[in-house]
Amino acid sequence: MKSTHHCAQLTQADIGASVTLAGWVDTIRDQGGIIFIDLRDRKGVTQIKLEPLSNPGIAAAVASVKPESVIAVSGQVSARPEGTANPSLPTGAIEVEAAALEIFNISDTPPFPLDDAGGDKVNEDLRLTYRYLDLRRPKMRNNLRIRHRATKAIRDYFDAQEFIEVETPALFKSTPEGAREYLVPSRIHPGQFYALSQSPQQFKQILMVAGVERYFQIARCFRDEDLRADRQMEFTQVDVEASFIDREDVYRIFEGMLKKVWKDVLGTDIQTPFLRMPFTEAMNRFGVDKPDLRFGLELQDFSETFKSSAFKVFQSTVAKGGAVKALNAKSLADITQGEMKALEDAAKSLGAKGLAFIKVENGEWKSPIVKFFSDAEKAELTRRLDIAEGDIVFFAAAEWERACAILGRIRLDVAALLQKRGRLAIRHDDWKFLWVVDFPLMTYDEAENRYVATHHPFTAPVPEDAQYLDSDPKRVRGQHYDLVLNGMELGGGSIRIHQPALQKKVFEDVLKIPQDVVESRFGYMLKAFTYGAPPHGGIAFGLDRLVALLCGTTSIRDVIAFPKTQKGQCLMTQSPTPVTAKQLKDLHIQTVIPAAE
Amino acid sequence: MKSTHHCAQLTQADIGASVTLAGWVDTIRDQGGIIFIDLRDRKGVTQIKLEPLSNPGIAAAVASVKPESVIAVSGQVSARPEGTANPSLPTGAIEVEAAALEIFNISDTPPFPLDDAGGDKVNEDLRLTYRYLDLRRPKMRNNLRIRHRATKAIRDYFDAQEFIEVETPALFKSTPEGAREYLVPSRIHPGQFYALSQSPQQFKQILMVAGVERYFQIARCFRDEDLRADRQMEFTQVDVEASFIDREDVYRIFEGMLKKVWKDVLGTDIQTPFLRMPFTEAMNRFGVDKPDLRFGLELQDFSETFKSSAFKVFQSTVAKGGAVKALNAKSLADITQGEMKALEDAAKSLGAKGLAFIKVENGEWKSPIVKFFSDAEKAELTRRLDIAEGDIVFFAAAEWERACAILGRIRLDVAALLQKRGRLAIRHDDWKFLWVVDFPLMTYDEAENRYVATHHPFTAPVPEDAQYLDSDPKRVRGQHYDLVLNGMELGGGSIRIHQPALQKKVFEDVLKIPQDVVESRFGYMLKAFTYGAPPHGGIAFGLDRLVALLCGTTSIRDVIAFPKTQKGQCLMTQSPTPVTAKQLKDLHIQTVIPAAE
Repeated sequence: MKSTHHCAQLTQADIGASVTLAGWVDTIRDQGGIIFIDLRDRKGVTQIKLEPLSNPGIAAAVASVKPESVIAVSGQVSARPEGTANPSLPTGAIEVEAAALEIFNISDTPPFPLDDAGGDKVNEDLRLTYRYLDLRRPKMRNNLRIRHRATKAIRDYFDAQEFIEVETPALFKSTPEGAREYLVPSRIHPGQFYALSQSPQQFKQILMVAGVERYFQIARCFRDEDLRADRQMEFTQVDVEASFIDREDVYRIFEGMLKKVWKDVLGTDIQTPFLRMPFTEAMNRFGVDKPDLRFGLELQDFSETFKSSAFKVFQSTVAKGGAVKALNAKSLADITQGEMKALEDAAKSLGAKGLAFIKVENGEWKSPIVKFFSDAEKAELTRRLDIAEGDIVFFAAAEWERACAILGRIRLDVAALLQKRGRLAIRHDDWKFLWVVDFPLMTYDEAENRYVATHHPFTAPVPEDAQYLDSDPKRVRGQHYDLVLNGMELGGGSIRIHQPALQKKVFEDVLKIPQDVVESRFGYMLKAFTYGAPPHGGIAFGLDRLVALLCGTTSIRDVIAFPKTQKGQCLMTQSPTPVTAKQLKDLHIQTVIPAAE
Repeated sequence: MKSTHHCAQLTQADIGASVTLAGWVDTIRDQGGIIFIDLRDRKGVTQIKLEPLSNPGIAAAVASVKPESVIAVSGQVSARPEGTANPSLPTGAIEVEAAALEIFNISDTPPFPLDDAGGDKVNEDLRLTYRYLDLRRPKMRNNLRIRHRATKAIRDYFDAQEFIEVETPALFKSTPEGAREYLVPSRIHPGQFYALSQSPQQFKQILMVAGVERYFQIARCFRDEDLRADRQMEFTQVDVEASFIDREDVYRIFEGMLKKVWKDVLGTDIQTPFLRMPFTEAMNRFGVDKPDLRFGLELQDFSETFKSSAFKVFQSTVAKGGAVKALNAKSLADITQGEMKALEDAAKSLGAKGLAFIKVENGEWKSPIVKFFSDAEKAELTRRLDIAEGDIVFFAAAEWERACAILGRIRLDVAALLQKRGRLAIRHDDWKFLWVVDFPLMTYDEAENRYVATHHPFTAPVPEDAQYLDSDPKRVRGQHYDLVLNGMELGGGSIRIHQPALQKKVFEDVLKIPQDVVESRFGYMLKAFTYGAPPHGGIAFGLDRLVALLCGTTSIRDVIAFPKTQKGQCLMTQSPTPVTAKQLKDLHIQTVIPAAE
């Protein structure tokens, strides 16, 4: 029996037609001797009516049918009896009176409920073990469809803009200085290894040298880092590079892409151009380089106010070149002791010694530190932070970047506390896109006692800053941009260095990478650049995170069909596993199990 | 300087306009003090005219410009002087009179010529070392574009047919019984390994159990097999699966896909439905399961003719159940001794003891064996092989499959010899698509003394043959299909087993896979099938090979941006490489270099 229609198709217009439907038994119930089955396929649900008394052949078969079994049913479409129609279903006006039934597979009873509400409460490990059942839940099915539509929209967009998709190798060369990578032993070359590509960065720059001019790829990438909700061993990257472009071109191209994705997938018009904010401003106002602009609670700088304060902690911080920052958690004076403790712990985890505060209750400033403040200092705080009854103000005093980071974290936690109290509404679909720009090209690494590339060593300096590369490297801004959405970094990129001499200088003189390492890791790129490299730049987006935002979920595991757990395991197939001695021998390796194991 | 136009855009309509173009210097020549540059970008070429005398600023700059340098030029579009237009170029009527010049990068002299003719003669290793230059050649650029257009057409097609693309993991579970796989050591789980996925087969079947119904993916796959022109360590597969479908649906869906690909990429209408041929017929007529139908030279069976022959070699082969097959290499009696030797060697490599033949010269049958033939046998040969002056007939006598395979190989070699002589025309764009069907489900493996799956153990038997699974397994045909184009296997697939009991029976009772192996490899699939698996089937195509056919090249390395050599090396980046002791320690492995190395 082959289906003539799908399960969301039949309406009153089909009444009287002979049809065949196939799918899964969503529900089955006996109502006074008549059996009703909600038959489900990828499109929807249709009600099937079976009258065993008038059809003994069916009667025997249907007795064995349980929910989630796979069947096909043939019969006539009829109107549902008066008053039993379900207007919320496309097929709610009709039912199919089964005349024949074919059973493809009887299902055992699933280990957890397959509706969204029930499934959401289930332990994620159980969902991953039975992923084929978890994916039947409407939410998960919809996530897969959204992912498909988003990737299709991205590909259609770049194709229309004359970008071509070029596949680059997953089996790449090991570059041990970068993030931890997966190694793949070579059978043909004993003792040698490939590394799974962490990103197509180098290949895409090579494609620019090759004259491709407009490249994109939706590429699988691999990183052997510790896993979290928003990180997987393998992830998918929307990777783009173009020649003869500047930052403005990049902004325009990717704003257009996101506009199309939001329109095609959600039907939402997003406003372009996006807001832009220099890195320093983002840190100063939001304490983070990926600010969530859906709410205020901005940080204020009081370094100037406290530079001669009687409160020595603040005064001495400013004297040492640090910053005093504060934010007013409006109306959060009713914070509990437990919540307060959690905020303090968060601040301490970022290097704060404690979390100074002023709580305003009954017209009074309650605070262990306020006794040190002068009237002028208090007036300045009140004025700029708009301090009022019921507020609580938090302070951070430390080196500028740390002070920002501490209050940036407090800001997010405070927002969550206000949300919980119903005093702040943050909608997941209040889309606040933002380009963060003007990052420092280099950051000084105390541990390594040298400058390291803030993003990667291929980023070009802002032209007017290039003169300071030798004399004052930290003053040099990079032509880097991050795209941020609602506090998440969607992606980032840069205009690259295309002059071989400048690239070599950055590697060797500025970043102090030993010459032999430069040669073995990047020698081929430097060589390629001597054969006519165009100016170029690009960007890379995390697709998993983008889709998670579109789906309104916080875990990228919800938008990946078969994710690994945070321990890197596939619970469904039971991987990784030990392998045979012959496999290891073929690959010229042996295992060395730590004694503790 | 930013370009206003691309290099294939300006025509007579633009004369007088001020424009800026950017790209690579394709050629540069001094013609009586005036410099002409053909400036090239991804779209085409535009002629630039520089008059150093009237523009001293340019004069100094242009002196350093060499071919393949990257520049931008601003100036006015003007008509080329009378008689110097080039009608074969879109921009052939105009030139740009340079008023300003920006040099982005000067190129060293490339190590090989970048035109198609010159580049084709270059050693492939050199091309791969400088892949960024090789990819600038028009042919290679076009190959990348064809690949992009083909994948776009495939995705558009499946999207329109309501298939969704679902990504499945590259890091899968090791299944040591199959083809050799790449292993990836786990850092978190000492002594354990992932395997790089050889195909999404199991995941796509799981997606059918998950109710996705229509899945496709253009997926990277990995196989650690010895490499050849049409095989790479990593390759790209167009992978498709659908539920509630039968073989006819599969044929229709994929014929539609290929029709669209050929139309979108080449503008060619291919005829559907494709020819279908049972496996046995393909072997009998063409000696191979992927026959090239662009030419005849079919095999004929003379087992019946020689079953009581005085020529004992033939007679005894038939008596033992084998076959005597022959093909007439029309007009190839002028075969050289060297060519003859090569044919014999080819036959021997397939297990033939020699290569019996009859050569017809001057009305006479010249052959070491013809003296044993009766007049009736000779008459039968003449009649059925249409033997005439100048022909040469080749024989194979062996078990049926081997006899077919030997002459199948001779047929291809003979075709090549006839092509060389100009007596047979085989066009690469004479598209002969063919479904090969009705393969045996199982093949008896002499070495292992058991049946093995001809394709894979998930293939469903043809329903009317399933009754012979126990009593006569070799009689059971599988619901498998291969798609063949011009002698190349484009892809294959099958309707799968969806009943858990039948799948378990095939694994354990028919294929005699030990129960613990079944459990560890396929246990999760068998379990999944108990929760409502729909009938399903699908197919997988090799994208690299498909694109190679579209490009008219025989090497898939020509349609992969960064391929590995036949020794698995990337010559451009120099991979694989040794890695550091720390990397190995982190992954709980050490290398074991063979003594001989």
